Amino acid sequence: MTTSDLVTLRRDLHRHPEPAWREFYTTARLVDELETRDLDALYVGREVLSEDERMAVPEESELDEWYERALAAGAREDVLEALRGGYTGAVAVAERGDGPTVALRVDIDGLPITESESDDHVPAATGFRSEHEGFMHACGHDAHAAIGLGVLDSVLASDFEGTLKVFFQPGEELVAGGRAMSKSGHLDDVDYLYGVHVGLDHPSGEIVAGIDGFLAVSHFRAEFTGTPSHAGARPEAGDNAVQAMAAAVQNLYGIPRHADGATRVNAGMVGGGTATNIVPEEAFIEGEVRGETTELMEYMEEKSRRVLRSAAEMHGCEVETFTEGKAPSARSDDELVSVVSDVARENANVTSLVERDALGGSEDATYLMREVQENGGKAAYIGVGTDHPGGHHTGTFDVDEDSIGLGIDVLSSAIRELSTRRP
Amino acid sequence: MTTSDLVTLRRDLHRHPEPAWREFYTTARLVDELETRDLDALYVGREVLSEDERMAVPEESELDEWYERALAAGAREDVLEALRGGYTGAVAVAERGDGPTVALRVDIDGLPITESESDDHVPAATGFRSEHEGFMHACGHDAHAAIGLGVLDSVLASDFEGTLKVFFQPGEELVAGGRAMSKSGHLDDVDYLYGVHVGLDHPSGEIVAGIDGFLAVSHFRAEFTGTPSHAGARPEAGDNAVQAMAAAVQNLYGIPRHADGATRVNAGMVGGGTATNIVPEEAFIEGEVRGETTELMEYMEEKSRRVLRSAAEMHGCEVETFTEGKAPSARSDDELVSVVSDVARENANVTSLVERDALGGSEDATYLMREVQENGGKAAYIGVGTDHPGGHHTGTFDVDEDSIGLGIDVLSSAIRELSTRRP
Amino acid sequence: MTTSDLVTLRRDLHRHPEPAWREFYTTARLVDELETRDLDALYVGREVLSEDERMAVPEESELDEWYERALAAGAREDVLEALRGGYTGAVAVAERGDGPTVALRVDIDGLPITESESDDHVPAATGFRSEHEGFMHACGHDAHAAIGLGVLDSVLASDFEGTLKVFFQPGEELVAGGRAMSKSGHLDDVDYLYGVHVGLDHPSGEIVAGIDGFLAVSHFRAEFTGTPSHAGARPEAGDNAVQAMAAAVQNLYGIPRHADGATRVNAGMVGGGTATNIVPEEAFIEGEVRGETTELMEYMEEKSRRVLRSAAEMHGCEVETFTEGKAPSARSDDELVSVVSDVARENANVTSLVERDALGGSEDATYLMREVQENGGKAAYIGVGTDHPGGHHTGTFDVDEDSIGLGIDVLSSAIRELSTRRP
Amino acid sequence: MTTSDLVTLRRDLHRHPEPAWREFYTTARLVDELETRDLDALYVGREVLSEDERMAVPEESELDEWYERALAAGAREDVLEALRGGYTGAVAVAERGDGPTVALRVDIDGLPITESESDDHVPAATGFRSEHEGFMHACGHDAHAAIGLGVLDSVLASDFEGTLKVFFQPGEELVAGGRAMSKSGHLDDVDYLYGVHVGLDHPSGEIVAGIDGFLAVSHFRAEFTGTPSHAGARPEAGDNAVQAMAAAVQNLYGIPRHADGATRVNAGMVGGGTATNIVPEEAFIEGEVRGETTELMEYMEEKSRRVLRSAAEMHGCEVETFTEGKAPSARSDDELVSVVSDVARENANVTSLVERDALGGSEDATYLMREVQENGGKAAYIGVGTDHPGGHHTGTFDVDEDSIGLGIDVLSSAIRELSTRRP
Repeated sequence: MTTSDLVTLRRDLHRHPEPAWREFYTTARLVDELETRDLDALYVGREVLSEDERMAVPEESELDEWYERALAAGAREDVLEALRGGYTGAVAVAERGDGPTVALRVDIDGLPITESESDDHVPAATGFRSEHEGFMHACGHDAHAAIGLGVLDSVLASDFEGTLKVFFQPGEELVAGGRAMSKSGHLDDVDYLYGVHVGLDHPSGEIVAGIDGFLAVSHFRAEFTGTPSHAGARPEAGDNAVQAMAAAVQNLYGIPRHADGATRVNAGMVGGGTATNIVPEEAFIEGEVRGETTELMEYMEEKSRRVLRSAAEMHGCEVETFTEGKAPSARSDDELVSVVSDVARENANVTSLVERDALGGSEDATYLMREVQENGGKAAYIGVGTDHPGGHHTGTFDVDEDSIGLGIDVLSSAIRELSTRRP
Repeated sequence: MTTSDLVTLRRDLHRHPEPAWREFYTTARLVDELETRDLDALYVGREVLSEDERMAVPEESELDEWYERALAAGAREDVLEALRGGYTGAVAVAERGDGPTVALRVDIDGLPITESESDDHVPAATGFRSEHEGFMHACGHDAHAAIGLGVLDSVLASDFEGTLKVFFQPGEELVAGGRAMSKSGHLDDVDYLYGVHVGLDHPSGEIVAGIDGFLAVSHFRAEFTGTPSHAGARPEAGDNAVQAMAAAVQNLYGIPRHADGATRVNAGMVGGGTATNIVPEEAFIEGEVRGETTELMEYMEEKSRRVLRSAAEMHGCEVETFTEGKAPSARSDDELVSVVSDVARENANVTSLVERDALGGSEDATYLMREVQENGGKAAYIGVGTDHPGGHHTGTFDVDEDSIGLGIDVLSSAIRELSTRRP
Repeated sequence: MTTSDLVTLRRDLHRHPEPAWREFYTTARLVDELETRDLDALYVGREVLSEDERMAVPEESELDEWYERALAAGAREDVLEALRGGYTGAVAVAERGDGPTVALRVDIDGLPITESESDDHVPAATGFRSEHEGFMHACGHDAHAAIGLGVLDSVLASDFEGTLKVFFQPGEELVAGGRAMSKSGHLDDVDYLYGVHVGLDHPSGEIVAGIDGFLAVSHFRAEFTGTPSHAGARPEAGDNAVQAMAAAVQNLYGIPRHADGATRVNAGMVGGGTATNIVPEEAFIEGEVRGETTELMEYMEEKSRRVLRSAAEMHGCEVETFTEGKAPSARSDDELVSVVSDVARENANVTSLVERDALGGSEDATYLMREVQENGGKAAYIGVGTDHPGGHHTGTFDVDEDSIGLGIDVLSSAIRELSTRRP
Repeated sequence: MTTSDLVTLRRDLHRHPEPAWREFYTTARLVDELETRDLDALYVGREVLSEDERMAVPEESELDEWYERALAAGAREDVLEALRGGYTGAVAVAERGDGPTVALRVDIDGLPITESESDDHVPAATGFRSEHEGFMHACGHDAHAAIGLGVLDSVLASDFEGTLKVFFQPGEELVAGGRAMSKSGHLDDVDYLYGVHVGLDHPSGEIVAGIDGFLAVSHFRAEFTGTPSHAGARPEAGDNAVQAMAAAVQNLYGIPRHADGATRVNAGMVGGGTATNIVPEEAFIEGEVRGETTELMEYMEEKSRRVLRSAAEMHGCEVETFTEGKAPSARSDDELVSVVSDVARENANVTSLVERDALGGSEDATYLMREVQENGGKAAYIGVGTDHPGGHHTGTFDVDEDSIGLGIDVLSSAIRELSTRRP
């Protein structure tokens, strides 16, 4: 596939952004392409996910709506059938003789953000603005998908010896999909894994050989249930879910700091009650905790559960807490970082090289990285700079499409280099 | 108008329940009827309200939507024109020679409650269920309007000497309309005022000669505004509106009890934030405070404002607080209670008489009662029993239509009796 | 005993104020006097208390210290021996033929308040200021003890027929002694019981025939225990008892108001921690809850226990909660109030009569009143006015000693009148 | 002075531990010694402190008590006179020709800790246990003072060229004295400054060439004042200082974490109220905030002030906040660390060398270090290992007196080495 074809594909995906577990069109479109390659195996849907490990799966009706939308947009029905129930994503496998198994992981989901209609915004001006109003590829995962395909083509056209696997992962934006894919079994024999992200405030032409500083994260939703009563006539008869929630919020932020490193907590969305004169029966918190390491995140998780439980008890309420997304921390292995660093230095189109950078956010590629590392393999996460007019997760985000080619070059060179090694 | 006609009118109003400041169809329909009576004056819309005293007036778009709905339902356009902007309600005046000015106040608004579709529910079974889905006359104000008209007819047909004024008040359910009507000037010359409510757990045939125990109430909406930031990457850059809100909730309920009598506080509806990973920029509380007396309510109001303000400051936020509804306490005057008691005792259809009862809730008829009392007049609030299958403010509430006639009899007898007195 | 002797006795007691369960000198001094009367029984110490029902008993070392102090002040060693271990108080019984059993209850303990040394303060000026520095009879219980003895003498000198019992109760100020005395068995046959208090802002010459409005009360001490750690080096290793305590305080005041009547809550004394740089291992709250009825107090008690328990759990702490004092609500029976009212009206020295008044505070005479009422008897609590320069519980409180005689007259007249009745 | 004399001196100081601003005996004893040296200047008391910069100075009566104690213990009255009012500490200056000005800072205060009486505890067994019961040299500042004197002797006996200044600083334990000494002017011409600490879990024979990781710290005392009232009779009349304090505690711990590095907050000691039945008039918090950098500490300080202020306002209280101690962060300069590293490597008695270590606590030597660094000089803080049976700040802490000599050797060698440099 030529770079121009990849740009066309990226624009097609850009027009059809789909959020977590609803990447029906996206997966079907990628399968379309992958089936034309000389692969040894192509796994789709349930075959690439450990069923019980999916998080934040939407209601069936919501899934059905996006399924129909994909169908209407022209997605192949036979592929869609394999994705029914929110089993999205794919893994492509190509065996090319003796050599290590090298993997690349890209993510493919979009965001619930309304895309800019401004003439300054290339997708709007050029005609590939999102057709799913209120949703947008505002983080470059459309480019990631194109890079995944491009790297596959490039490696297959080379003298690469070994096995190549490309993981197209759903549900990264909610840190909801990485765990299920990491437990699919497809990583069991992987010796080397690369993850990749475009942008992140790095300009076009810049390569970051190794990204670290992923904060481990856990998203939760806590639902408090009490007893309603008339606030004027029988205040004592109520068990006030809003009081429970407020006590929880106050004390969540008060979880002690940890000497071993950074921790975070946020009650990002809250609500409760139905009328000024009714003691509230229900309230909720959607929040998150983070840690510089997985252990620190788990420390915050454990303490937050205790706060939620006690705050409910304090006001005679019940609380149910759901984990809605999760990702561990991870560290890019020196060996893989060096390989990228070396090939980037030799690449004339790389105008700037950053050896190591810290993300300071969260990313569930870490599940895949740790799975490989725990199996004795190595993993790294690299950055491909791209000029982006608006920030990540804003309506004016866009990528410099030239960076797609550069990302493919650097990654496929690194993978070819790895094929010469014996882990 | 015959009792049967009044029942027809009540059912028409029941089919068109309209919430506060949106009683367009209701007011127009009442004006239709009132114009056919021998009145000395009929005031409508802006003429019956002190403009600045209206509370909880909805957005213009919301008002427009209900306006159009009333028009579509057949309301007279010339009357509607006078109500534009949410100026609903009417006051009818009939002068019948020398004598005191006696007034009756009825309220006319509906509630945001979905009406039952059960066959056991008479309006559903008989075909006059609400046509405004999600809204309902679930507190009998449709019957109140019919009683107001019936009392007018009955008194005008009698030997009454003096002036009779009937107030059709909007926006009672939010305690949003009483103040504006009380300050309209139409009460300035009123010597005696009755308010009336049907039901309240009193059965058909029972009359309550005097209702007291109104809790003074004040509804508020507090809007907290802070500064958003990424909860992982820059937690310190945020000013957390949800933390401010939670601190406020905790401390609102902690406002000290008062030795002079009962007080109440409730944070009935709260919300805030946009995403788990964003430090919340906005949050709100819709709540209320009450007191056994107006002074006690004001004590709670003052303390609650201080809590809201300080909670915002504590977390670097701004807070704007809006009073969304308000009513003082009031007491029914002995003289007017005795008059009702006497006429009820002589009425063969009254099967049970309660001299005094306590409401334990709030009602903004108290604004009108106090206005009259402060001018040297007298006021009372009476109860007309009616069997009601479901409780007030539930989807199965309904009235026994026979009680409309009894209410008219008792009130018009009382008003005729008052015309013989010289205040 | 002459009134002058009673004044001498009162001043002796005033010089030796003793707090709850430490009324060694006081009890011994009263026994001295009582032994000289023609009694049928005199019960002392353990004989007048149900052992398990004593509350807020101090440490043994504290009891010993006051025991020694009493001994040094000249108290009789044989009597003291019977009081060892904090079993203070006495009950005197005189049988005078057929007739009802009538009882009077007076309390005898002092307060931890430093008495004024001012020349304006009569005890200081006249030489009977407290000899126990930091303690004081600042609520008139010295006068109560004198009244108890005076009533005994007066009734025994009269034509009274029946049985008279006088209860000298310890530990009222902490509401710690009433329960133990009420369960001693000595009330089992009592038909009529009077309690009495001087002052309460009623002037000399005024009698209050019946006092009500006792708030039921329960004192608690909650001790939180967590885990200390260095606040700089290992903040996460601590379980913060001060955080637990603060969460409890915030939520104790937020216990919902009750529609059935007045409730109260107060975290009157709190403390915790040892150094700025140590995560606090210990914290405490000494507080109280009250209710207009015993049920309302128990509602508050139950909710407060839940708050304390959950606040501890929330921060990984343990909490132990001790009940340190308690008293139910009670109501003065009409019959006994009328009797007082009648005799007061006939007494030329009574210059003013109040039929009923409300206390608005707490008093554990209520335990004795309810015990009698539950057994089918009647009880009332009466007020004997006395000019008092300083308020109750202040260092300048004092009584007008003339009111001692008036109190004796009114109470003994009432008791004689009751002896003519048959319950 | 021989090492044996220094040990004698250390034991004398150990017997007379004195807390911040009360180091009367200690200063006088050091002055005794210093006056026998060939110094060019000796500054004492007010001469070594910037008066307005002292923090946490005790009440005059407290100062007087320790003054008298020092006098009684044999301190020279003429020296004491110069220290009156809590102006303790000294600076010794020796000029030895051309060369840089090199300074050493040691601290001299003790702690409010009761010293062990166990036979296992050398000071107890050997007869130099603290004579100030409840106070103890439990952090080795007695050894620091001895090292200060020993370095002075050692350098003066060498071929050192330049100026040597030794700072004997009071009030380190409360981080109360460093600021005042740093602003005394005596650092203005200092080119190189060493601070030193023994122990810190480093064994005898080990030298730490550079200590970093000082957390900047600020101690505060917040005093809340409200209005008392009777909790049963007039709860609404109180302004509850304990509620204010509890709201403050809850929200202090909730100050947002900071992405730039570690922060800390602790409400280490709290208290309030006088009786269960009184709405508390007063409450306090003694606490601290810390930061990995001075900026981070100041961030916490600013937010904590806002919380304290708003919590007071929320409950109608006043709050006064006092800074009771403070220290910035600081970093040891590479050049000075290298010098120590080099001399340590050449010292046969140094059995182990740690290049850099992190303290993880706070120390107000940082004020002096930063003063020198801001003037263009260099500073470092070094560790001298010593076996210590009990931990720092415990009753069984003690030093291995052999480490005093080793510390003197290393420091004086480093200082002589520096005299050869030209800054």
